Amino acid sequence: MANLKNTQHDSISKIRKLRKEEISVDRLIEGIKKSDKASLAKAITLVESANPEHLEKAEELIGKSLSIASRSVRIGITGVPGVGKSSFIEVLGKTLTDMGKKVAVLAVDPTSALSKGSILGDKTRMEELSKDPNAFIRPSPSGKSLGGVARKTRESIILCEASGYDVILVETVGVGQSEIAVHSMVDFFLLLKLSGAGDELQGIKRGIMEMADAIAINKADGNNIERAKLAQVEFSRALHLYPPKENGWVPKVLLCSAIENKGITELWEVIQNFCKSMKDNGYFETNRRLQNKNWFLQTVDEQIRSYFHQQKSFITAEEEMLKAIDSNQISPYHAARKLLDQFKNQLK
Amino acid sequence: MANLKNTQHDSISKIRKLRKEEISVDRLIEGIKKSDKASLAKAITLVESANPEHLEKAEELIGKSLSIASRSVRIGITGVPGVGKSSFIEVLGKTLTDMGKKVAVLAVDPTSALSKGSILGDKTRMEELSKDPNAFIRPSPSGKSLGGVARKTRESIILCEASGYDVILVETVGVGQSEIAVHSMVDFFLLLKLSGAGDELQGIKRGIMEMADAIAINKADGNNIERAKLAQVEFSRALHLYPPKENGWVPKVLLCSAIENKGITELWEVIQNFCKSMKDNGYFETNRRLQNKNWFLQTVDEQIRSYFHQQKSFITAEEEMLKAIDSNQISPYHAARKLLDQFKNQLK
Repeated sequence: MANLKNTQHDSISKIRKLRKEEISVDRLIEGIKKSDKASLAKAITLVESANPEHLEKAEELIGKSLSIASRSVRIGITGVPGVGKSSFIEVLGKTLTDMGKKVAVLAVDPTSALSKGSILGDKTRMEELSKDPNAFIRPSPSGKSLGGVARKTRESIILCEASGYDVILVETVGVGQSEIAVHSMVDFFLLLKLSGAGDELQGIKRGIMEMADAIAINKADGNNIERAKLAQVEFSRALHLYPPKENGWVPKVLLCSAIENKGITELWEVIQNFCKSMKDNGYFETNRRLQNKNWFLQTVDEQIRSYFHQQKSFITAEEEMLKAIDSNQISPYHAARKLLDQFKNQLK
Repeated sequence: MANLKNTQHDSISKIRKLRKEEISVDRLIEGIKKSDKASLAKAITLVESANPEHLEKAEELIGKSLSIASRSVRIGITGVPGVGKSSFIEVLGKTLTDMGKKVAVLAVDPTSALSKGSILGDKTRMEELSKDPNAFIRPSPSGKSLGGVARKTRESIILCEASGYDVILVETVGVGQSEIAVHSMVDFFLLLKLSGAGDELQGIKRGIMEMADAIAINKADGNNIERAKLAQVEFSRALHLYPPKENGWVPKVLLCSAIENKGITELWEVIQNFCKSMKDNGYFETNRRLQNKNWFLQTVDEQIRSYFHQQKSFITAEEEMLKAIDSNQISPYHAARKLLDQFKNQLK
């Protein structure tokens, strides 16, 4: 309970902060165009806001951003905690900014709804990269629903692209649902693994491995190299057990070491090869169109929901039902039924 | 893509199977009352069905089940893959049926949307328990959204309770979102851990540990006992770092071994103590009321969504937008906006 309250309190203070200054979408867009990080950060906060007052502005902002958004490569990165995601992203990010690219890191964090001090919110992460003028790092709390995260992260991608970022790294942690969400909004999906630990501790293999366009075995350094090579063979073998991908891509297994900065440029080459061959066979566009359709369907659901929760009569009826449930006068299931019937009658 | 298609195909064949025989809610309820497992399984399939034709029957079924549902203890069990959840649940389940209890095991599986052969769907799991006449085991695919899983698992709990099950074990796997969903529908939340592996590989500690009412260190047998005892001290210490729970309960850390059948009855005692003290201080009811309110809110959202997706005019407009997105004529975001505006006008 305490956590829920904290989360609520957090978002209330965020809303207040936004309210204090009158938000000008045009000014935000100007800042975004100039690649001003503060404007970009503020824009993402606006889009993430649950306040109905911000909804219209957020929509305007996304609409305008879509028209100026550049085309980036969107890369999803996942792996269980302890696999070294932060250091890996730091090194990959630095490598890319050294090449003159602009890199944005968005983190989808399924745990932050529960705990304020989630691992992705850790302030000491990616210290180097966060100081880089060509890098933008943004951990995003998931809010109430994972569907919610997905939508907002997708919109954050658009905002980053409008701000001229070439490479968007979407980081996620966990086994399952958040990966599915992230997979549905990136071009390339990378799975980080370790060689040392038993596979059974590295999370569910099947579902996540099936989504991977590449597996990078991290911490392939020092005494670990031999084991990492063995793991490489094993993972390659395991990947062969899956049916070939529709897009014709054969997932690669690479060794890398974030600490020794090894295998990072090789990985970037793989990603570039992937993009080239997907653009050649048309699948890059096919995939983005499919993702757009999913984005649309999710947005529709989300907007229908928020439409009703902006109607006073609906909110009042809902609150009455909550009171009745609280005093055990009605079962939650019947209450929902009754509320919907009431609102159906209003429709006619 | 192939996976998505498979999932769709699966649900289509499921729907066809249901359609073949005319479903009689009364007959299902009769079967459920008699504790007929086939009827219970069929009832859960009906509730899980996405077919609008089944919606009304599912609602009738839940409504009737609510009126005959007995009061069970609902226990959530989580832990990363490899921690031995299946063997643990098998032994706990057998211990409980030996005491004359009826045990239902429901599995919330966030990965099965992706992969047909998910680890929770493994047929060789819980072989003993699945043969027990007083046990019912049901792995539930998560479907599209995790919100969806939550609602359906909650309803499956009601169906099991209507069928006279005293103890409902809700199993989940993963780090994050699915635990939050399961936590919101159980009375007691158990976290399984291992002593051997480093904590960093055991998933995110903070969020999940904060929810736990007990931590059981599994595989505390053979050479592992000393390490398990050390882990017990460490986890107890870690738990003390959290602020005290509102309900006054101090989470316990236990050792157990599913293989040697040790620590299982002790765990059951802890759960019974928990229930007794929560019932005494009123928190058991407070918590269930809070969960009921969340259930209501989720059901309302879900039903609003499905209401629109049953309207022909809405479906047609949505399909037109999808076509326009597919041919790059409109951005997904604008399409959603336009669809909603159209439907708003219909409301007036």
